Amino acid sequence: MKVNGESLRSIWRDNGSKTVKIIDQRYLPHSLEIIDLNSLNDFCEAISEMKVRGAPLIGITAAYAIADSMQKDSSDSNLENSCNSLSKTRPTAMNLFWAINFIKENLYKINSDIRADKASKLADQLAAEDIQKNKAIGQEGFKIIADISEKKNKETVNILTHCNAGWLATVDWGTALSPIFRANREGLKVHVWVDETRPRNQGGLTAWELANEGINHTMIVDNSGGHLMQRGMVDAVIVGSDRTTSAGDVCNKIGTYLKALAAKDNNIPFYAALPSSTIDWNIQNGLNDIPIENRSSKEIDHISGLDMDGRLETLRIYSESVKSLNPAFDVTPSKFVTGIITEKGIYDPNEEALRQAFGKK
Amino acid sequence: MKVNGESLRSIWRDNGSKTVKIIDQRYLPHSLEIIDLNSLNDFCEAISEMKVRGAPLIGITAAYAIADSMQKDSSDSNLENSCNSLSKTRPTAMNLFWAINFIKENLYKINSDIRADKASKLADQLAAEDIQKNKAIGQEGFKIIADISEKKNKETVNILTHCNAGWLATVDWGTALSPIFRANREGLKVHVWVDETRPRNQGGLTAWELANEGINHTMIVDNSGGHLMQRGMVDAVIVGSDRTTSAGDVCNKIGTYLKALAAKDNNIPFYAALPSSTIDWNIQNGLNDIPIENRSSKEIDHISGLDMDGRLETLRIYSESVKSLNPAFDVTPSKFVTGIITEKGIYDPNEEALRQAFGKK
Repeated sequence: MKVNGESLRSIWRDNGSKTVKIIDQRYLPHSLEIIDLNSLNDFCEAISEMKVRGAPLIGITAAYAIADSMQKDSSDSNLENSCNSLSKTRPTAMNLFWAINFIKENLYKINSDIRADKASKLADQLAAEDIQKNKAIGQEGFKIIADISEKKNKETVNILTHCNAGWLATVDWGTALSPIFRANREGLKVHVWVDETRPRNQGGLTAWELANEGINHTMIVDNSGGHLMQRGMVDAVIVGSDRTTSAGDVCNKIGTYLKALAAKDNNIPFYAALPSSTIDWNIQNGLNDIPIENRSSKEIDHISGLDMDGRLETLRIYSESVKSLNPAFDVTPSKFVTGIITEKGIYDPNEEALRQAFGKK
Repeated sequence: MKVNGESLRSIWRDNGSKTVKIIDQRYLPHSLEIIDLNSLNDFCEAISEMKVRGAPLIGITAAYAIADSMQKDSSDSNLENSCNSLSKTRPTAMNLFWAINFIKENLYKINSDIRADKASKLADQLAAEDIQKNKAIGQEGFKIIADISEKKNKETVNILTHCNAGWLATVDWGTALSPIFRANREGLKVHVWVDETRPRNQGGLTAWELANEGINHTMIVDNSGGHLMQRGMVDAVIVGSDRTTSAGDVCNKIGTYLKALAAKDNNIPFYAALPSSTIDWNIQNGLNDIPIENRSSKEIDHISGLDMDGRLETLRIYSESVKSLNPAFDVTPSKFVTGIITEKGIYDPNEEALRQAFGKK
């Protein structure tokens, strides 16, 4: 998608040096910092410290990490160790494990002397597929927005989104924002309510993406969405997902569940948009079976921003003695989900519909 | 309640000078700043700029404002003008209009030469009554906590609260926190989940109050409450109210409605604690009839805290170009409310129960 009019991706390989480059998203929206990842440790830290975030991008970053690691040592033991280290970076995002398993299975089958090249090609392939899938999610989800637009006589469609499930959370296009980017490019009038999404305020990333694409949007605190829905100011909710069960329970950024409840109470459709690699076919019950990451309390009691001189600073906003708990995700039970927008179509959030669509027994 | 072991109130008249003093709550929890209010303008600004906040305290501050104004000019016209100015400071809090009307009616009946003295006495009377009422709310609400404690075999009772409805929101004791202060003093084990409550982060005030009373608590972002309820980590929700309709619709800090929805979905009792002066007997439907204040977007895109050197600083956290919307309150329909805790008892959230309890036709 566009940044200051130029196309940019969240992760790419430098044409000349072949070094993997990412946007260090911790400095956005204040500053666009591009950094190199040169070692397994660089990659692991990029994921765990959330220099990259968003389930699809985490998966692709892991793929590039293995490719980088194989170039240095393509032995079985290094493959095993690299995959193990990457698996421990973040516990919730399904795409991380999906990508690691996909690459690992393919590399174990072949001789170690051709692994480096193969790993590199597979990472590029996954990145290319991610873009294609997210573009397809946009095309499928576009139909929902177009339908609402039609019913509103082409008046502005108001969509609420939580966290950042835009192109920064993937390689390009995004998941929840992809239908919105598409709708905007197709000339529909859209306006986005952007949840600021505490504690990391990833709403700032969403606003930055939307501004760069010239899409009308308004920042709100996470507390406001229910009130806006009660007042008829929201036509649909679209969010991403870090892991979705085969029965359609949607695990996503903490607070998503509250918006799903409010959407239900106000008869507003609530969609999760995700590539099928986000679906965990081994579990049904999201509340019981998805591990929820607890992150540092520093994410709650410290915050960064620009001071009066435009310098990036960090402040402590609560007393040092205040204890906090910081679960990063919650689970929205399938009964509150209107549909799952995937690269292949929009499906009901249930076992039968999802397994049939993706040919999973 | 206690601050560093000493008893303190949110508003009081200096024993010697008779000047009205308040805690400027904008600097809490970082710094305890006590300021004098010396003119009608001082009082109006204290309310509109939220140096004082919380519906009951806003009402008492208005009462002291009229008393101060009457000492300078006790004419009919100044009474009228003072009341008008105060009415415009904040649109949602019922107690503001209740207190203004109460004082105004009493002063119009008497000669202007005795108004200054009468106004002063009435303000002191309302402040004293506020303390008594809030203490009574604590005693009534205590029964709820004691019941849960009993059912849990005296294990810790986990209460979630939103915003600050503690003693800082009243003259003393508070509304939602009053039953918690009481339970703690009675020796029950309680733990409070403190919603940080964006955009003004009044959870910091709640945590400060609880810490000073030695009550166990944990700060969470507003997004987390639903997740904790799904996991059985919340036994009850208790919030305050800025205006409650005669039919039991509860208007309170933005985001309250989302917590009520989650409580309902998880069969957790949801209470609003309020003095009866918060009830607006003239309206039934909160969504239609309560004006919701939209506040400055600066409350969303700027935040204050301590820098590394312990200095209070303010940062901009979103781009200057980002537009935001900042509704300060939402309405929780009565069907999501388990009970209304008042100074006279706990009542079902419906017209009949409330009118009967308070003798309102």
